[in-house]
Amino acid sequence: MPAAPRTVPARDRRADVLRFLAADAVQAANSGHPGAPLGMAEMAVALWHRHLRHDPAAPDWPDRDRFVLSNGHASMLLYALLHLSGYDLPLDELRRFRQLGSRTPGHPEVGHTPGVETTTGPLGQGLGNAVGMALGEALLAREFNRDGHVIVDHHTYVFLGDGCLMEGISHEACSLAGALGLGKLICLYDDNGISIDGEVGPWFADDTPRRFAAYGWHVVADVDGHDVDAVDRAIAAAKARGDAPSLICCRTEIGHGAPGKAGGHDVHGAPLGAETLQAMRSALGWTAAPFEVPESSYRDWNAGDLGAARRAAWQARMDAYAAAYPEAAAEFARRSRGALPAGFDTWFAAALTALQAEAPAVASRKASQQALDLIAPRLPELLGGSADLTGSNLTAFSGVRPVRRGFAEAGRHVNYGVREFGMGAVLNGLALHGGHLPYGGTFLTFSDYSRNAIRMAALMGVRSVFVLTHDSIGLGEDGPTHQPVEHLASLRLVPGVHVHRPCDAVETLAAWGAAVRRADGPSCLVLSRQTLPAQARDAGQLAAIARGGYVLAEAAGDRPEVAIVATGSEVALAMAARDALAAEGLAVRVVSMPCVELFDAQPQAWRAAVLPPGVPRLVVEAGATGGWWRLAGAGGQVLGIDRFGASGPAEALFEAFGLTARDVAAAARRLTRPEAAPAHP
Amino acid sequence: MPAAPRTVPARDRRADVLRFLAADAVQAANSGHPGAPLGMAEMAVALWHRHLRHDPAAPDWPDRDRFVLSNGHASMLLYALLHLSGYDLPLDELRRFRQLGSRTPGHPEVGHTPGVETTTGPLGQGLGNAVGMALGEALLAREFNRDGHVIVDHHTYVFLGDGCLMEGISHEACSLAGALGLGKLICLYDDNGISIDGEVGPWFADDTPRRFAAYGWHVVADVDGHDVDAVDRAIAAAKARGDAPSLICCRTEIGHGAPGKAGGHDVHGAPLGAETLQAMRSALGWTAAPFEVPESSYRDWNAGDLGAARRAAWQARMDAYAAAYPEAAAEFARRSRGALPAGFDTWFAAALTALQAEAPAVASRKASQQALDLIAPRLPELLGGSADLTGSNLTAFSGVRPVRRGFAEAGRHVNYGVREFGMGAVLNGLALHGGHLPYGGTFLTFSDYSRNAIRMAALMGVRSVFVLTHDSIGLGEDGPTHQPVEHLASLRLVPGVHVHRPCDAVETLAAWGAAVRRADGPSCLVLSRQTLPAQARDAGQLAAIARGGYVLAEAAGDRPEVAIVATGSEVALAMAARDALAAEGLAVRVVSMPCVELFDAQPQAWRAAVLPPGVPRLVVEAGATGGWWRLAGAGGQVLGIDRFGASGPAEALFEAFGLTARDVAAAARRLTRPEAAPAHP
Repeated sequence: MPAAPRTVPARDRRADVLRFLAADAVQAANSGHPGAPLGMAEMAVALWHRHLRHDPAAPDWPDRDRFVLSNGHASMLLYALLHLSGYDLPLDELRRFRQLGSRTPGHPEVGHTPGVETTTGPLGQGLGNAVGMALGEALLAREFNRDGHVIVDHHTYVFLGDGCLMEGISHEACSLAGALGLGKLICLYDDNGISIDGEVGPWFADDTPRRFAAYGWHVVADVDGHDVDAVDRAIAAAKARGDAPSLICCRTEIGHGAPGKAGGHDVHGAPLGAETLQAMRSALGWTAAPFEVPESSYRDWNAGDLGAARRAAWQARMDAYAAAYPEAAAEFARRSRGALPAGFDTWFAAALTALQAEAPAVASRKASQQALDLIAPRLPELLGGSADLTGSNLTAFSGVRPVRRGFAEAGRHVNYGVREFGMGAVLNGLALHGGHLPYGGTFLTFSDYSRNAIRMAALMGVRSVFVLTHDSIGLGEDGPTHQPVEHLASLRLVPGVHVHRPCDAVETLAAWGAAVRRADGPSCLVLSRQTLPAQARDAGQLAAIARGGYVLAEAAGDRPEVAIVATGSEVALAMAARDALAAEGLAVRVVSMPCVELFDAQPQAWRAAVLPPGVPRLVVEAGATGGWWRLAGAGGQVLGIDRFGASGPAEALFEAFGLTARDVAAAARRLTRPEAAPAHP
Repeated sequence: MPAAPRTVPARDRRADVLRFLAADAVQAANSGHPGAPLGMAEMAVALWHRHLRHDPAAPDWPDRDRFVLSNGHASMLLYALLHLSGYDLPLDELRRFRQLGSRTPGHPEVGHTPGVETTTGPLGQGLGNAVGMALGEALLAREFNRDGHVIVDHHTYVFLGDGCLMEGISHEACSLAGALGLGKLICLYDDNGISIDGEVGPWFADDTPRRFAAYGWHVVADVDGHDVDAVDRAIAAAKARGDAPSLICCRTEIGHGAPGKAGGHDVHGAPLGAETLQAMRSALGWTAAPFEVPESSYRDWNAGDLGAARRAAWQARMDAYAAAYPEAAAEFARRSRGALPAGFDTWFAAALTALQAEAPAVASRKASQQALDLIAPRLPELLGGSADLTGSNLTAFSGVRPVRRGFAEAGRHVNYGVREFGMGAVLNGLALHGGHLPYGGTFLTFSDYSRNAIRMAALMGVRSVFVLTHDSIGLGEDGPTHQPVEHLASLRLVPGVHVHRPCDAVETLAAWGAAVRRADGPSCLVLSRQTLPAQARDAGQLAAIARGGYVLAEAAGDRPEVAIVATGSEVALAMAARDALAAEGLAVRVVSMPCVELFDAQPQAWRAAVLPPGVPRLVVEAGATGGWWRLAGAGGQVLGIDRFGASGPAEALFEAFGLTARDVAAAARRLTRPEAAPAHP
């Protein structure tokens, strides 16, 4: 007897089309994470179909809502949403999920796929980016909106999972968001109770609503995450609260819809398998083949008309604004593009020349503050801050006001609190949002805490500036926990990071110039606690700073027997050693190398002119030597510090660690002797 | 008319002697942090005078209470306590606060000063260490105590400040401590409302008691931190709770007692100045000169007699235990010493030989699990775990049980949750506590998150083992966010870290052998996701793995024209390239270098035998090249990856990034040509 026809209950097909696109793509790739897309499908319907203000034809519309998938492993959910909504992400790209060269990589990558707002995957950082985006929105709204003219008014939405909430950065970012009252930040928590190791209860027993209430958030607890209307209502409630960020706790089932696998941790990170996929088709009454999208789904999901209408309405407001406030409108456009003001380069070159004439001897952290005093009035997009070390990092420029809850005044300095990693992710979010050029300070040693955020800035190619002071044992008495040793070399290893370690006030200003003009990635400004003498430069040398490495002092007779390459505080040692050796008749060239990455990018001719083949090289830096041997080259040497520091006055430390002008001179002298050879076998 | 004699109210002189020792030492050093010691003086009296079980004559007594000063900048408070209690820390050392070579460095350093339990300063990590100590205590109590015989029964106390609570690691560590119900962990929060940037309200508005209640902690809110009796009562209440960790929120005034400066942020990190110090003497009626301690204070504070009596009582219990359970007592003693079991080395050598005979081809992460299957039964102190990647890192050995709240069964695997940094600090705390040899796993990329904990392990010289899997683009489809590039080179830069990247199962077992036998520091085991072929070795080569670098395959005729140095998954490429080049008549030696640090520590003769001068070297590693140029030497080359990875199948990536046997052979061929030269000027 044939089976009775299966009765399929009326279902939300909007969610199911997401489910099958995600599960089929993971299956085709034979790799990926189906559990979260299946579990968050209804949350996605509620947000993307009923609330998200975006225009698939204009992914860079400044006033679009931002959507951050902080649990980035659910990438197929986002790709399905972008495809169905009408972004330039064809079905073929979904078929090529996780394949080399596709626009659908394993985790979402900003700049790689239209509609992706930030690169996520390293858990918790998307949430931190979102705090930055919401902060950027609030500050731009405060700065640019006028009575009757609202041109900045959008929300930042986040999907996040248990993993994001376990990560420490969620505490840093959300505590700060609560203190600042970022009311347009709305986070939807995919509370499925499952992480890779299984049911989270034994290791993650937080009362999360209570935790977020403690941060001053508006919390909507206990929402059925598979009930689109319930999630919709919660989002509406969150939007009604302007004074506090919102957390909507959505109870969901991981892998919802996948028979036999839903609710278990096996569905997190492996394809469902052909059998389960078929069972899911039967259970949900889904008859379309893999990657076959019903035309009705396309019609239903397409956000093109609504998005165009919303953007047109905004454009009309923008036009009215431009008519009323032409200068502000032009400035808003410039800031949104990330372009520097007209004439900036000319002004900057003159400022650099003027500073060279003045030649102040100051700590480079102080020189950095003086550089900010010069630049900040001309770059209103500069938005500074420190992780509770403002007075040490010297990141607050003259007359700057703090960013405070309510944004009553035009604050441009964020007190990030003791939250280095959170700060890093917020800086990246500010940069991604557009309209600001963010920087933040901490001690170089504690770049460790924010290291992956610096990496993410480089991977995303965003213009975050990390001000890292107290850059060596020169920090002194605070001792080895606070003295960086390996950090300079280690930051230089991160692809795409520019690490500047200026030797005096002029190089510090030049470093700021390079950082703000760099369009495609982050910069680290590595600065001294202690005073550094000013170096003399002619116009050619002044211009050459931007090349990352240049001849600061030529050897007597222009025929160097040794080249000493130094950075930061050690340039002065090299100069003193050069003088001492000149008295002995040894001709020493001193090369200042404030930015190895910029030097490496120069034409071979420049590099060979600065470091001529055949002239032995001594590199001097108060940090790990490991990264310098390539540049030291055959027969070269590196003088540095390959052990931890110690607590004591700075002068005593430089003496004890063998980094005085005397030591540099001795090392240079050894290089010229025939028995000199590389240290290693 | 002469002023009326000043009436000084009866004061707690126990607190004041701490105050003056701290403030005078900071003044003498002209550097340091007086604010926190002054503010926490009464908290210190309550804990150290009324509760802390310790014996100044025996700082390594296994059952002592642990005290962690997580806000390590208050170091002078701790030094004053240690000095007054009778530890071997003479007054002269306090006079030399923050001087090079003193036992009183700027931040407390374990192993450097008797009575200091962990090195603190990087905020939040002391708290994480303390969670590890409390976990170690709970597990040892469960394992060793018997009915009527309690030999493990102590508390872990923590002082911490706003900074610790802002740091994300406080969330990770305290959420885990709550889930595990670590009832013997008692934290005293110095809630002074001030951080370096000023009054914390605008950036740190957490309702901290509510936050900790959300973690399942026992919270004593709103305690007057300057009322010794109130703090005393709160500690007593905390000790009465065995099922949950406790947070005691002590309202304090930073710099309490310093006229005109108390309560402000200027008192945080700078000496009081002679004038304020004198005013404080007057205000508190303190007539002793700087560093003059009244004899009554010494008598009052000395903990020698009480400590000796307490330790004697414990020793009597230990003796009774040893009589009843001689084997367990011997094991407890061995574990407390950190010694490996007798015969371990012999057994291990045999196991390594047997594995070489078996020669399995497995991923090195799988080989690591198999190594654990072998070692863990013989080393009951091994305590494993993963940051929610147990099934990916393969850190759970056969039959292991999880560590769970209540400790009802003998768990040896901790599900740390998605908390890499917290895990790192907990591992360090477990190692510091003694009795366990802790290891924990995550992806190599996310070593970024825990980087400063790895650094702290090295600085402290503790035996934490970091299992870091998915060690290159070989991770595949998860893409650049998850693919390490710079991480290997960057970990090798941290002084004192041993980084092992084994090329097959045998080298993986050898790496575990090195890690567990290393007494003085941490090891990172860097392991592949993908399968690695087994390499053949004779007995000499097998023994040579421990030297960090050795000749894995000699060139034809024992006369190498090129030496290829490789690690991990690239060793197989080097071997294949060697075969291909041999067919062309090029004699290639392959050097496997699983641990650069161990190789560097070999005698020059060994290093020169492995890498003979004059034989050009090609180094191959699927990661940043920056760290290898020293070893590549004159005329050498490095083949690696200096850009971010991409999402795609592993094989496609190795092809696209130029890391195949063909690429290696081509690079080696180029090295032998006369026009070959170092890549850089």
